[in-house]
Amino acid sequence: MRSSSRGEVAPFIVMDVMEQARALEAAGRSIIHMEVGQPGTSAPQRARQALAQAMESDALGYTVALGLPELRAGIADLYRDWYGVDLDPGRVVITAGSSAAFVLAFTALFEAGEAVGVTEPGYPSYRQILKSLSLTPHAIPTQSETRHVPELPDENLAGLIVASPANPTGTMLSRGDLERLIAACQARDVAFISDEIYHGVQYDGRAISALEISDDVYVINSFSKYFSMTGWRLGWMVVPEDHVRRIERLAQNMFICAPHAAQIAALGALQARDETETMLQVYAENRRLMLDGLPRAGCDKIAPPDGAFYIYADVSEHTQDSLAFAAEILNEAGVAVTPGLDFDPVRGHRTLRFSYARATSDIVEGLQRLTRFMAERAK
Amino acid sequence: MRSSSRGEVAPFIVMDVMEQARALEAAGRSIIHMEVGQPGTSAPQRARQALAQAMESDALGYTVALGLPELRAGIADLYRDWYGVDLDPGRVVITAGSSAAFVLAFTALFEAGEAVGVTEPGYPSYRQILKSLSLTPHAIPTQSETRHVPELPDENLAGLIVASPANPTGTMLSRGDLERLIAACQARDVAFISDEIYHGVQYDGRAISALEISDDVYVINSFSKYFSMTGWRLGWMVVPEDHVRRIERLAQNMFICAPHAAQIAALGALQARDETETMLQVYAENRRLMLDGLPRAGCDKIAPPDGAFYIYADVSEHTQDSLAFAAEILNEAGVAVTPGLDFDPVRGHRTLRFSYARATSDIVEGLQRLTRFMAERAK
Repeated sequence: MRSSSRGEVAPFIVMDVMEQARALEAAGRSIIHMEVGQPGTSAPQRARQALAQAMESDALGYTVALGLPELRAGIADLYRDWYGVDLDPGRVVITAGSSAAFVLAFTALFEAGEAVGVTEPGYPSYRQILKSLSLTPHAIPTQSETRHVPELPDENLAGLIVASPANPTGTMLSRGDLERLIAACQARDVAFISDEIYHGVQYDGRAISALEISDDVYVINSFSKYFSMTGWRLGWMVVPEDHVRRIERLAQNMFICAPHAAQIAALGALQARDETETMLQVYAENRRLMLDGLPRAGCDKIAPPDGAFYIYADVSEHTQDSLAFAAEILNEAGVAVTPGLDFDPVRGHRTLRFSYARATSDIVEGLQRLTRFMAERAK
Repeated sequence: MRSSSRGEVAPFIVMDVMEQARALEAAGRSIIHMEVGQPGTSAPQRARQALAQAMESDALGYTVALGLPELRAGIADLYRDWYGVDLDPGRVVITAGSSAAFVLAFTALFEAGEAVGVTEPGYPSYRQILKSLSLTPHAIPTQSETRHVPELPDENLAGLIVASPANPTGTMLSRGDLERLIAACQARDVAFISDEIYHGVQYDGRAISALEISDDVYVINSFSKYFSMTGWRLGWMVVPEDHVRRIERLAQNMFICAPHAAQIAALGALQARDETETMLQVYAENRRLMLDGLPRAGCDKIAPPDGAFYIYADVSEHTQDSLAFAAEILNEAGVAVTPGLDFDPVRGHRTLRFSYARATSDIVEGLQRLTRFMAERAK
């Protein structure tokens, strides 16, 4: 059968690592998961209770395409609470994860053939989703020395995607950084897309939303990280008022609606801030352990980990082949980590990403295994 | 902010009708829902029980991109049961509804700018999803007199989408029709995409799967209709073996995975055939009532309703403006129906689609309202 060139995207390497780890576990090995960016915890109890109740009384059919009105209102409340921003719930679009939000944003904003700026390192799926939609990702390399703050390049771009806290580095953009980037984009009619999926997962100070600076931006967020609901596939997007109907028509046709069950669970999650703040305390302790333990294991060149639950380490002292190194760590040490090539096709051969989203006991054990492995390897 | 021309898709009219009906209900009106193609029933009890149980013991994080292995195996079993086809579960891709399957199929198969054949009348989102992906829908008009069987046109097409039972007509393709269409497509390297979302919802004889005829096709199906799980957003796609890895990479990046909760519920639904067959009996009774009552109300020019839960009626004796007519029926009779323009931009101004997926008592009441309304209107 025929196939398209735009369908020839690269694999999401971390998902292949997950699969390798699963196979080792199925064969009886103990594996510590520092590869995937997902909490070890389930959705908050209030989220699960809300759904259990709804399943008894509600048929849970299609919702309207933009999502349950009460959930859109609840998210608008979150913007008041987190940022002091007065947001019209009518601008909130409920999506099937941030993934669906990216697909909607890219199709709404860009014609086939246009170029969109993405940071390197950065979330790999930006590049692959852009490619699958016949768009051209334009790499913007960032440096650890300048805290991975991107600059809008001179080339002709239709859009720019930035993330703060960023994946894989965990670095956050300051208000000044965001103001400068948004102004530069608006001056050149470059659509500014702010990926805020790690907001709330922060340790010193808080992340700034692009919505604090301008209404003329696309903001994408999700229940996956702070609310610990990865597998539920529920996210949201805030768009300029005059883009709502455009996005609604696209969402009606491309997705019909986001999963109703997940929307009900999310309503519960919004009421479970005590539970989510407890999870955050676990990440904070895990981060402390990682910042202490990773350098001892020999990984001390790391990006400033302001938020999210990742450490991005330059391991060029140990390898020039992060793919092989990650496989070695998985097989020898029993710790799954993600090769930097997932995030940076150019320089990622000498970096690794460690996720610390799981239970603290896993982090302790993982660090012990890594330390032993690296000591053994150095002999 | 900038916007793209490909993002300028038409609304999914039925969802706008849903919204109008909801607004009338919120204002205190009683509305009978014959607009939307969704069962009035919830997911099978076994589906909900399976999820309620899993929520107590499982974190429900990301699944692998292709879906839970046991669900893929369960779907392969369904092909043995329904069609006598021996299907490798490795070819089954779990998707976020058939909607996500269309997005995956179109990006995997077609380059921007290529043309893909769609029947008119037909499911409106084919056209809009194609457009949003920078593809060109090529209309293939079908006729009631020839049971809405499409022909592969002479134009240069990259793909052809057919549905059996079809939406909005309910007509089914015979084995001979399918064999002829698939052979014609394969002879010209036209990708054949078989939308089988209404399989199982059939009244005389059974629908034929394209997989009974060839492995070199894309087959798309869903838990929405026969399994009564619309809002759960869970579907599947069967692809040729050498396309699995291509689809996996796209799914990893574009969707990460289908909703885990829905996958668990679907595992339960596959075990609930007693419940789903009971629902089918309700549709059969509803269909009998519709085929008796609609002609009495003055709508007797209808497509052969072999399957699905729709009646597609030519109402040109009553109107040349189906949009206005549907609005009149909604406001005057309190019955929500879908204007044919959703399905056929050329001839749909004189057709309506009636859905009979709800409770039988609703169908009885809806038919009474329609009969009264039409009698009053004829005065």
